[in-house]
Amino acid sequence: MRIDGLQYANWSEKIFRQLREGGVDAVHVTIAYHENFRETVLNFEKWNRWFEQYPDLIMKGLWASDIDTARETGRTAIFFGFQNPSPIEDNIGLVEIVHTLGARFMQLTYNNQSLLATGCYEAEDTGITRMGRQVIKEMNRVGLVVDMSHSADRSTIEAAELSERPIAITHANPHEWAPALRNKRDDVIRAVTENGGMLGFSAYPHHLKAKSECTLESFCEMIARTAEKYGVQSLGIGTDLCQDQPDSVVEWMRVGRWTKQIDYGEGSASNPGFPPMPEWFRDNRDFGQIENGLQKTGMSDEEVAGIMGLNWYRFFAENFGPMQP
Amino acid sequence: MRIDGLQYANWSEKIFRQLREGGVDAVHVTIAYHENFRETVLNFEKWNRWFEQYPDLIMKGLWASDIDTARETGRTAIFFGFQNPSPIEDNIGLVEIVHTLGARFMQLTYNNQSLLATGCYEAEDTGITRMGRQVIKEMNRVGLVVDMSHSADRSTIEAAELSERPIAITHANPHEWAPALRNKRDDVIRAVTENGGMLGFSAYPHHLKAKSECTLESFCEMIARTAEKYGVQSLGIGTDLCQDQPDSVVEWMRVGRWTKQIDYGEGSASNPGFPPMPEWFRDNRDFGQIENGLQKTGMSDEEVAGIMGLNWYRFFAENFGPMQP
Repeated sequence: MRIDGLQYANWSEKIFRQLREGGVDAVHVTIAYHENFRETVLNFEKWNRWFEQYPDLIMKGLWASDIDTARETGRTAIFFGFQNPSPIEDNIGLVEIVHTLGARFMQLTYNNQSLLATGCYEAEDTGITRMGRQVIKEMNRVGLVVDMSHSADRSTIEAAELSERPIAITHANPHEWAPALRNKRDDVIRAVTENGGMLGFSAYPHHLKAKSECTLESFCEMIARTAEKYGVQSLGIGTDLCQDQPDSVVEWMRVGRWTKQIDYGEGSASNPGFPPMPEWFRDNRDFGQIENGLQKTGMSDEEVAGIMGLNWYRFFAENFGPMQP
Repeated sequence: MRIDGLQYANWSEKIFRQLREGGVDAVHVTIAYHENFRETVLNFEKWNRWFEQYPDLIMKGLWASDIDTARETGRTAIFFGFQNPSPIEDNIGLVEIVHTLGARFMQLTYNNQSLLATGCYEAEDTGITRMGRQVIKEMNRVGLVVDMSHSADRSTIEAAELSERPIAITHANPHEWAPALRNKRDDVIRAVTENGGMLGFSAYPHHLKAKSECTLESFCEMIARTAEKYGVQSLGIGTDLCQDQPDSVVEWMRVGRWTKQIDYGEGSASNPGFPPMPEWFRDNRDFGQIENGLQKTGMSDEEVAGIMGLNWYRFFAENFGPMQP
């Protein structure tokens, strides 16, 4: 079973076919960065059209059991998530509404301070806000997973502790391996995984040691060491693949409508666009390479199978439905 | 089994308890008259709060099987509908979105011309529009029932013929019994019922012979005669109960935001508000009176059970899910 914990591609029939070629059974796709509720609904609509147009390649994913259906019918189950809480605006009632529409992950922040928490690019991290505490409780109730990939450290640790259900960092790597601002320090990963949460390893070059030049061996060794440290059951893949996106999209991701100045995020003035992917993960057809690379680290077949998909499967099964009393 | 095909009450714990006292297993409730999409979402949210607050009295109804669950647990299943297509605005993609959120009925018009069809108060009826044809097809696909209660005759007949699935008049009576503008002529009822559709009998005084003075005997005799004429399997109850609503609400229903002038609809300058209900149907506790009245007409127990709920149950079971190929 192969599950990717995050992608934001410029979706097309070509990419849907590549998902099938790569044997990807399920993928968590971002459908909102800075969109408000009404705009996010347009993105749900766009996916509904794709589900109608490509019924033999993809299907809507709501529950882990949909992954079984996808596997039985040779399709990829698409699960939705937001990288920012902008779709719920200032309205806690929208948490249940977006869950009903199919959202399964929501980041509490995207780089900046939000109404709920502090993003990883702010100078000061004040932790979870008053509204943030209420929204985490509501997300727990309905089964919308707290994702802290782009959040600051204190906010992430507080979210892991406040949340009554496990949370996730869907796409990031350990900071000690590649000291990017977006990668996570030991105490952050520990807080998330000790509470049953998941870390999805990113193949986005800005999160890799040596960036686009990172070797498959280095990436897989890092995963093996992380498994030894935090337990393999908390780990999965979250490639952050942004395939076929024009550079205007990375600008939208970074600046949204919150600034009139350019913000380069993890890039720079000399390197403002999407970086080239490492040669061992160009697109969805390359999941087999990661799987082979993991096998060569000496991890057992069971451990590799967990990282490639079974750990996300179990996490989906336990966390997407209403909280049991 | 008791199912009411339409209500628009000023909902409260009191009314939820009365639903239980009256043995109402399911009710189709209006959650939009003139609301746009975003406003309609606020109404879904309001109901989500009620489902949380009164879990022992009510539950969200999505499928006929939810009525079984409601009966097993002593609750009333609440099914949602719109009296106007305003929630989908000019966007066909919103048909699936509102169905996902729980909408199960949508009127193509509310008295006036809409983007889809002609309402019963217009001087001329031009039938189903270009967008209307597309939206009916989409409603058929996802399982959102076309309701023509407030539509003009030609539009209704065309909708019954164009729709690949049965349609409904959730709340109206035969025009030959009570010649109100909102009641339906023979050829309209015939077009709807011949195509497997349903007519729900209204207890709203403006739709009754002798209005608030209408007797239970007259109402039930009318139902028995209608059953002889069109077949009992196409008939149910749709009381149009607007309990505890202030008169400002009937004004909102009639004028929305489409006019600055007052429009009295079925009322008049001297009688602008909600009319008093007939003494035999004051509120949800009185469903037993209708059932008794129907039994006295000489209809069989099976026929009465069909009208009181089983016919709607079958209709819900066949028409709320995606269209089978």
